[in-house]
Amino acid sequence: MSTSADIGVTGLAVMGRNLARNFARSGYTVAVHNRTPAKTRALIEEFGDEGAFLPAESPADFVASLERPRRLVVMVKAGEPTDAVIAEFAPLLEEGDVIIDGGNAHFADTRRRERELRDRGIHFVGAGISGGEEGALHGPSIMPGGSAESYASLGPMLESVAAKADDGAPCTTHVGTDGAGHFVKMVHNGIEYADMQLIGEAYHLLRDVAGYSPAQIAEVFRTWNSGRLDSYLMEVSAEVLSHTDAETGAPFVDVVADRAEQKGTGRWTVQTALELGVPVSGIAEAVFARSLSGHADLRAAAAGLPGPRAEAMASDAAGHFADQVEQALYASKIVAYSQGWNMIQAGAQEYGWDIDLGAVAAIWRGGCIIRAVFLDHIRSAYASDPDLATLIADERFSAEIGRAQGDWRAVVATATRHGIPTPGFSAALAYYDALRAGRLPAALTQAQRDFFGAHTYRRTDRDGVFHTLWGGDRSEQYTE
Amino acid sequence: MSTSADIGVTGLAVMGRNLARNFARSGYTVAVHNRTPAKTRALIEEFGDEGAFLPAESPADFVASLERPRRLVVMVKAGEPTDAVIAEFAPLLEEGDVIIDGGNAHFADTRRRERELRDRGIHFVGAGISGGEEGALHGPSIMPGGSAESYASLGPMLESVAAKADDGAPCTTHVGTDGAGHFVKMVHNGIEYADMQLIGEAYHLLRDVAGYSPAQIAEVFRTWNSGRLDSYLMEVSAEVLSHTDAETGAPFVDVVADRAEQKGTGRWTVQTALELGVPVSGIAEAVFARSLSGHADLRAAAAGLPGPRAEAMASDAAGHFADQVEQALYASKIVAYSQGWNMIQAGAQEYGWDIDLGAVAAIWRGGCIIRAVFLDHIRSAYASDPDLATLIADERFSAEIGRAQGDWRAVVATATRHGIPTPGFSAALAYYDALRAGRLPAALTQAQRDFFGAHTYRRTDRDGVFHTLWGGDRSEQYTE
Repeated sequence: MSTSADIGVTGLAVMGRNLARNFARSGYTVAVHNRTPAKTRALIEEFGDEGAFLPAESPADFVASLERPRRLVVMVKAGEPTDAVIAEFAPLLEEGDVIIDGGNAHFADTRRRERELRDRGIHFVGAGISGGEEGALHGPSIMPGGSAESYASLGPMLESVAAKADDGAPCTTHVGTDGAGHFVKMVHNGIEYADMQLIGEAYHLLRDVAGYSPAQIAEVFRTWNSGRLDSYLMEVSAEVLSHTDAETGAPFVDVVADRAEQKGTGRWTVQTALELGVPVSGIAEAVFARSLSGHADLRAAAAGLPGPRAEAMASDAAGHFADQVEQALYASKIVAYSQGWNMIQAGAQEYGWDIDLGAVAAIWRGGCIIRAVFLDHIRSAYASDPDLATLIADERFSAEIGRAQGDWRAVVATATRHGIPTPGFSAALAYYDALRAGRLPAALTQAQRDFFGAHTYRRTDRDGVFHTLWGGDRSEQYTE
Repeated sequence: MSTSADIGVTGLAVMGRNLARNFARSGYTVAVHNRTPAKTRALIEEFGDEGAFLPAESPADFVASLERPRRLVVMVKAGEPTDAVIAEFAPLLEEGDVIIDGGNAHFADTRRRERELRDRGIHFVGAGISGGEEGALHGPSIMPGGSAESYASLGPMLESVAAKADDGAPCTTHVGTDGAGHFVKMVHNGIEYADMQLIGEAYHLLRDVAGYSPAQIAEVFRTWNSGRLDSYLMEVSAEVLSHTDAETGAPFVDVVADRAEQKGTGRWTVQTALELGVPVSGIAEAVFARSLSGHADLRAAAAGLPGPRAEAMASDAAGHFADQVEQALYASKIVAYSQGWNMIQAGAQEYGWDIDLGAVAAIWRGGCIIRAVFLDHIRSAYASDPDLATLIADERFSAEIGRAQGDWRAVVATATRHGIPTPGFSAALAYYDALRAGRLPAALTQAQRDFFGAHTYRRTDRDGVFHTLWGGDRSEQYTE
């Protein structure tokens, strides 16, 4: 066994432990360390025969066991624990060493940490890791930021532990400098929220409008999962919906409290999108839907409020309706992903990252929660046109939306009439219709702003900034 | 003329100047100061005969001219300029003096400033002021935070310069401590965004579905403005829509570029709501609609995308449709305001403010941009039930929504079929339907989260937190 390690992992909770095992199983010698040594010992005891581990009980021993330039992966909670670990290890490192933060840090924290460590000659790589425990062990999607130099040293190792897409390409790439990796991971999670919300709405419609049972919906989802909606989340949905609660014999989904929790990355995504001025209504509605579900007091107060009577649908109509829902789900999904990619574009511009938009899609084809056939189409959309303004306008996607839009509208109208909330489908359709509208009522909005706040306006027919003297003779003033 | 002033105003741009004049016209002696003395002199020259002004050229003279406890209103740009002015004046003040920030500060900055000045014995009152230039002069709605003690000394003066509601009540009150005033002002602006967006959608539908001209829509809006939708924004909309562009002879709204700008308070509202976990989809969609309107590149790329053909509507159908749009607008407005009030409730809880929710409605009945008859109904809803969970559940509002909901659904369905974006109407209806839903697909979402991330779930039939071994025998584990 080697006495020096290729890489080290500190923080051996389930994600860190599985990532360390993944490195070891891939043939690397892995130094492992945890604040409380019991976890380190447990890892060696349970999985020590999976590869070459070098356990260390003290930070000094841990660092000393790493080959230079040292590569040290921090797998602790985001926020203060990450800062504490960095503060502990940075003084032990030397110029050119690399700290990799594999936690769910906010990209702004990653930018700050990278700057601080860069001043000390240490590379700091914020790496988004998606795929959960299983992904960490068998191959996650890895989104590293940081310097190109650090990726040169680190990349081959990440490529060997990352998931592989169907074409064999590893699901990792150098996303961009400083916080680019964590930024892109954040948007990944935001898209994940939107995707889950859309699937939830499809389920709700099939259940309450088409009158299908959870088991029937699982079958529908399995069919969809063999088509263009082929995705891990669709597969998971089918698994959940076909599961029966052992205790009651009821469909499992019916015994689960309808209160969706969140850990914050969806919220971060929307907050950041607002900062960047990018409309991400699909993600926002998904975040709001989760928080709404948890407001028991509001829901109780609104429980008896008037709505339409549920109408039963004939079974042949139900089959047709299910096909329409597939169209609505697919079209809404294109919109949600388009919004996400526009946000990555805007972030890259704001923070000076040179992000390959197609490569982001490519590394999400495997390992991560939103992995799907669909992502390969996004990859190829940007491959054909790296400057594509919106995915919606890509040839394949616009044609698909064109074929879907009639059914999409029918589904939203039906949901509306039946009183089934479809905030995600509706927001996506409104976004689509707003983007393609020749004229928007934003003209009235801006004119109102000029009326009550002298905020000025532009004209459609010539350049300049104008103000109308609304309180006076209503003549128009050229202001600049 | 008195040699000591009741109150001082520093920062004599249009808002500060008009507020100073308002104080002077109300009989107070007003010390006035500006960084560049030319503005101070111009104020005296132009409006010196309106009341008792004490111009001061230096901060020291300005402060020396104020009666103790000193009341010093800062009317400068939010952000660093405000901090700079505070840093300049605070050393000149004594214990018990009061600094009032009448700018559009973020409530978090106000909380910080209040804390810092409190430590030095100075009262800091962040006061939201709505009503624009005209309001500042003739009576704005004023939302002061800060200590109760400072309001005891300041309140009577604010009450005399504030707008008066129809019942004669002044449109100001002590909203709550520290940043409560600026928080509530922020939500006011968020609601204003939502209200303007909803009016814009009503306009869009009347224009493109009913086929009305801007002048006809102005007439419709005037009619609505004499009913339950009676509001300043409706009045402004009618004024704008009936205006003809002198240069082209075209309806003014048609020559205004359809790009709505924003100064940031709407974005702050949504970002804060996300932090508080309050769904404010109506405000969010309004903020997104403005930013979308400005993305010329996206709009150009999407311009030719497929949508339904516009169908002409017969003129008798148009009249009926306009009535339906009024119902949809009114119901959506109830939702948007409900979301805003829930946010105030959540903010009060988070930051320990004792906010009288009815009083907030009362002080928005006059002076501010969203002033409306409607607000008196909100005031009375909270007067009858201070613990109302949501305005939607108030007896009057729920009955109105009950009568409106059929038309509301018809309008959203029509918009959907016609390809007219109504993100505000749709989001409001989805929120309404989600709140009153017996079961939400959040159960599926939470089950998915348990499947791929072991995030656990609760059951409907008993307490506890559970996890299903999805990768194993799918038995259920009780985790706590």
